[in-house]
Amino acid sequence: MTETITEILRAYRAGALTPEDIVARSFARIRARNDPAIFISLREEAEVCAEARALARAADMQSPLFGIPVAIKDNIDVKGLPTTAGCPAYLYRPHSDATAVARLREAGALILGKTNLDQFATGLVGVRTPYGVARNLFDQKLIPGGSSAGSAIAVAAGFAPLALGTDTAGSGRVPAAYNNIVGLKPSRGMISTAGVVPACRTLDCVSIFALTVDDATAALKAITGPDAADPYSRPRPLREMGPMPKGVRLGVPTPGDRLFFGDRHSAACYEAALARLAGLGAAIIEIDIEPFYAAGRLLYEGPWVAERYLTVKALIASTPEEIHPVTRQILLAGAHRTAAETFAAFYQLEDLRRVSDHTFASIDALVVPTAPTIYSVDDVLADPIGLNSRLGVYTNFANLLDLCGLAVPSSICADAIPFGVTLLAPAGEDAFLAAIGLEFHRASGLPLGALRQPALIAPPPT
Amino acid sequence: MTETITEILRAYRAGALTPEDIVARSFARIRARNDPAIFISLREEAEVCAEARALARAADMQSPLFGIPVAIKDNIDVKGLPTTAGCPAYLYRPHSDATAVARLREAGALILGKTNLDQFATGLVGVRTPYGVARNLFDQKLIPGGSSAGSAIAVAAGFAPLALGTDTAGSGRVPAAYNNIVGLKPSRGMISTAGVVPACRTLDCVSIFALTVDDATAALKAITGPDAADPYSRPRPLREMGPMPKGVRLGVPTPGDRLFFGDRHSAACYEAALARLAGLGAAIIEIDIEPFYAAGRLLYEGPWVAERYLTVKALIASTPEEIHPVTRQILLAGAHRTAAETFAAFYQLEDLRRVSDHTFASIDALVVPTAPTIYSVDDVLADPIGLNSRLGVYTNFANLLDLCGLAVPSSICADAIPFGVTLLAPAGEDAFLAAIGLEFHRASGLPLGALRQPALIAPPPT
Repeated sequence: MTETITEILRAYRAGALTPEDIVARSFARIRARNDPAIFISLREEAEVCAEARALARAADMQSPLFGIPVAIKDNIDVKGLPTTAGCPAYLYRPHSDATAVARLREAGALILGKTNLDQFATGLVGVRTPYGVARNLFDQKLIPGGSSAGSAIAVAAGFAPLALGTDTAGSGRVPAAYNNIVGLKPSRGMISTAGVVPACRTLDCVSIFALTVDDATAALKAITGPDAADPYSRPRPLREMGPMPKGVRLGVPTPGDRLFFGDRHSAACYEAALARLAGLGAAIIEIDIEPFYAAGRLLYEGPWVAERYLTVKALIASTPEEIHPVTRQILLAGAHRTAAETFAAFYQLEDLRRVSDHTFASIDALVVPTAPTIYSVDDVLADPIGLNSRLGVYTNFANLLDLCGLAVPSSICADAIPFGVTLLAPAGEDAFLAAIGLEFHRASGLPLGALRQPALIAPPPT
Repeated sequence: MTETITEILRAYRAGALTPEDIVARSFARIRARNDPAIFISLREEAEVCAEARALARAADMQSPLFGIPVAIKDNIDVKGLPTTAGCPAYLYRPHSDATAVARLREAGALILGKTNLDQFATGLVGVRTPYGVARNLFDQKLIPGGSSAGSAIAVAAGFAPLALGTDTAGSGRVPAAYNNIVGLKPSRGMISTAGVVPACRTLDCVSIFALTVDDATAALKAITGPDAADPYSRPRPLREMGPMPKGVRLGVPTPGDRLFFGDRHSAACYEAALARLAGLGAAIIEIDIEPFYAAGRLLYEGPWVAERYLTVKALIASTPEEIHPVTRQILLAGAHRTAAETFAAFYQLEDLRRVSDHTFASIDALVVPTAPTIYSVDDVLADPIGLNSRLGVYTNFANLLDLCGLAVPSSICADAIPFGVTLLAPAGEDAFLAAIGLEFHRASGLPLGALRQPALIAPPPT
């Protein structure tokens, strides 16, 4: 296996492979998968190969992402490719790379293309897009998860060992769970959001998808850092990742407050995950999760949706029909919130932050299911807002409460669908979460992503 | 002179005076001044004297505010006295002290009563109140300054060497300047706002009035500290105050950007203040003040007025006529702001914070006039909003940009009116500002407050 960043770099350094070989493999897999809904813009293979050859001649093989193919969610600017945020009418051609993309390139990465998403990164399902619904790698009747659908699939399918997503409500975690990969949502401000189409500017994070916790952490290290171009950037040096601390205290919801919406497979998988963590020496401590759920509800029921509205204000005023109808309905609600409601919600959130701080005084991290369940594409199309909001119960609160999160694969459920858990801790604890996530993932014995799934799946019945 | 906290404590410890003596003096001065518009609730002298005697028997004379009379702005809860926020219809009887008041009492302070203010702490003039306009101690035609009008006068007139105010837009600084006293607006979160009627909860500070910087700092030390009852409380240990650093870099507006609205006296006083600072070894560095003005304009032109609206929402809905007409007009504007405007203003502010951070990378503190000028009561009544907003140009931006501030008397202008300057620095630098302010005030050679002004002034012509 030469799939992870670590393995690929080792092969390069041993002279066993060249960046061009890996790029060629990426494109071969993309062709074999034959799903036009994963990328919105895919670069020409010849162009990326030429870049790979140039890199091999000129760049330092010690660069942390030397010759690593990456996929970029299409709400993040890449110079030379249009940015659509999943909305053709919103398309623009950026004059420069987003800061995160520029840092990837400086670290030696090779960009394959721009990936599909729930329009304006609003959704956790991956079906709110006019660019087609990418097929779930494990069961094509199911949603791929979103909003960073294409980026998660690109990693799980082995197109690239690394992809960028964004995460405001869980868009960097839910699709990681559904694709059996790692989704790292760093502390707010750690990765610059300059050059990213805003969802909620006060909450947005660039997120990282990778096959392993090691790879995700290496990528974070390569692109984190303050950025004068992003007023929300905060200096947060990434600490060195140590071993998983002995006796780490992990908070979990009391059994009566765990939400699975009838999905017994997920419930059983979560129990198994907690048992594995206990086996690794963690103390499992039941906490009151309700204040976290309450914070999460503020995200779409409260004023923050006005931030999403601001991004599309001009478009809604001129050509509302160009916006996906479900997305339009959600974003329009943002136009009607008042400033007084906004501040009242801030006060509520501030109170909930206090409760969260208090909870984290007695635990080192929270561990929750990444998503409570998964739905079929048909079910989501029939109830697009109701089912979507269920999927965010374990993710929506994180950015509001200024937590960092790490979504880690946990098991393949009895229904053959991946199940993952998310570790959460106060901002700044990214390396600490990685230490736990790394051991937990290793102990799972899981294959990486969907790399053991059949590469070729027949196109879905039309 | 036994006027400052330091002097009074020394007299107590020497056995030369008792708390009862000082309380009796306070009430004698209050009677002599004969201005019913300074206090909204004044306690009975006999009651406070009894408390002083009990304190002398029971309390530790080493308590930092042992036997010190204090006046409390009437938007801060004191158990046993009603809270009005300057609005009779808003009156309630608090079940407990505000945290700041409780800490004053624990430190040995004796509460005299509750002071008049611009209604709901909205205003810098001291005339927006149905409890009468307190007479300016230096020229009774002039406004007293606000919103903490009564608290500032109580200190300047020698009723109490210490008073609490609040400061959201400058209410703890402007009246300090007009009363030739020190106004300390600490870093946000240093003094709990639990038990304070909110103006803008996200920005509000409890402020301190005293005759000297030493006294103000001692009071801050006595009442600062985290408070679980205030979600906006932040742990910010107060550093020890050192000497004024050599070669301290003080930023000042370029001459073309200094605003005095035609007041040549204030302009000359400001020049003199800068010359004195230079004489004390400070480097005077011209900076671009416009981004600070821009942040200040957001306070009333932007969404934050919706926070003020929230406090009076029920009252405005039921009996709007009970609110001062000028205050009502301002607060009602807060009802019409949208959430989208709110977030757009946050983004603007975040950009301006970056500029402010950048400015403070090359200076240690800003030094600005506390107020650009002063107006007569008649002029303010004729143009209540226009003139008021001019008075906030040097104060409105501080809380939004998360600065701490120290208003210090500077001189008595040629028109016999006090002029003061304000030192400003990023949150956390309170002790640093005090070090500069202390030397600056000492070098001014000014008398304390209005203690050399005639105690008895004829009532104003009716």
